[in-house]
Amino acid sequence: MKLYGFWRSLASFRVRIALNLKGIPFEETAIDLLQGQQFTENYRSVNPQKVLPALLDGDGAPLFQSLAILEYLDETHPEPPLLPLEPRARARVRGLALITTCDVHPLIVPRVRNYLGNELKLDESARLKWIQHWFNEGSRAYESHLAGEADTGRYCHGDRPTLADVCLASHAVGAKLFECDPAPYPTLNRIVDECFKLDAFARAHPLKQPGAAKAH
Amino acid sequence: MKLYGFWRSLASFRVRIALNLKGIPFEETAIDLLQGQQFTENYRSVNPQKVLPALLDGDGAPLFQSLAILEYLDETHPEPPLLPLEPRARARVRGLALITTCDVHPLIVPRVRNYLGNELKLDESARLKWIQHWFNEGSRAYESHLAGEADTGRYCHGDRPTLADVCLASHAVGAKLFECDPAPYPTLNRIVDECFKLDAFARAHPLKQPGAAKAH
Repeated sequence: MKLYGFWRSLASFRVRIALNLKGIPFEETAIDLLQGQQFTENYRSVNPQKVLPALLDGDGAPLFQSLAILEYLDETHPEPPLLPLEPRARARVRGLALITTCDVHPLIVPRVRNYLGNELKLDESARLKWIQHWFNEGSRAYESHLAGEADTGRYCHGDRPTLADVCLASHAVGAKLFECDPAPYPTLNRIVDECFKLDAFARAHPLKQPGAAKAH
Repeated sequence: MKLYGFWRSLASFRVRIALNLKGIPFEETAIDLLQGQQFTENYRSVNPQKVLPALLDGDGAPLFQSLAILEYLDETHPEPPLLPLEPRARARVRGLALITTCDVHPLIVPRVRNYLGNELKLDESARLKWIQHWFNEGSRAYESHLAGEADTGRYCHGDRPTLADVCLASHAVGAKLFECDPAPYPTLNRIVDECFKLDAFARAHPLKQPGAAKAH
């Protein structure tokens, strides 16, 4: 498979974790978001929405939207499963995953940060406050689910990593990158620590990707 | 089943469409977002994230996040299916659905509009510009997928309504509510018109719910 990603893209990070967990070999082509390569004609022909990631699997049309890609990988490569079997358990895992992909991440992506700077003329400190606000809201939502619900185990749902952990890991890495205080979220932190003990998560980390070293 | 919703909530609208398409009887309890009822202790015990919708199915824990609820309904009530069978087709449908639930809707929900007003001190006109900007970005993304791809049929994917249509309908209703110009998106409009010919969509419309009449 061929992944269009970028070291700093949290959505690409999620797909990379899933590819690693499934043991699927892939090549990654970097689309440099900081240089605006997502806006080139070449990449638009891959993803008309001009966002990362996109995944090519053989000759079919490019797959888009990280969560749709994760579900696709789980359906085409069932082992190890990223969703439990029982519908209500699946709904909890998906619900937890969506806290990242719907309620937090969309508010802090480059196109939104650009609007805040270019259109609303917010300075760096107001932009950072915005970003931290939404990460903290998400962390609070996670902590109240994870600390309060009996289905939480070593990972978000039981003792195997699921889609929820893939998304939570990307949430936690983003929150750290933007210097959010992790202290109020002990259950979240415990589970993320557990995730990063797994090579599939650790190897996929944004700061371990080509390009990250020189940018940092 | 019992739905916690609100006439104006686009995410509740999506769940209402799916319940109607599946023919599942449900009662809806209104949580008045305009009056802040989502912040009451009572509702927090249903959804600690203090957002709509939530769905109760029997005695189990409340289901949360509209897309997780839609997938749950499709798994527990398979007829008529809201996803095609083939993994790549499912990925396209989910990808299209996620354009609404990840890339547009999270940017215009009450908590974000409140932040724009209360924290960033944006006036009504700047807030409306923000809202329209993200709806238009989403409509452009939809139009380029729907107009350019062979899998588009009477609906977003083939000739039966799917999760993508459920989400697209909520996108279009939101865009109209905020007075976005629909003219540049003929394929999107054609499909949304097709959706609202179906009673399951038409009956679920926000403006047909109790409370909408007096608010309008």
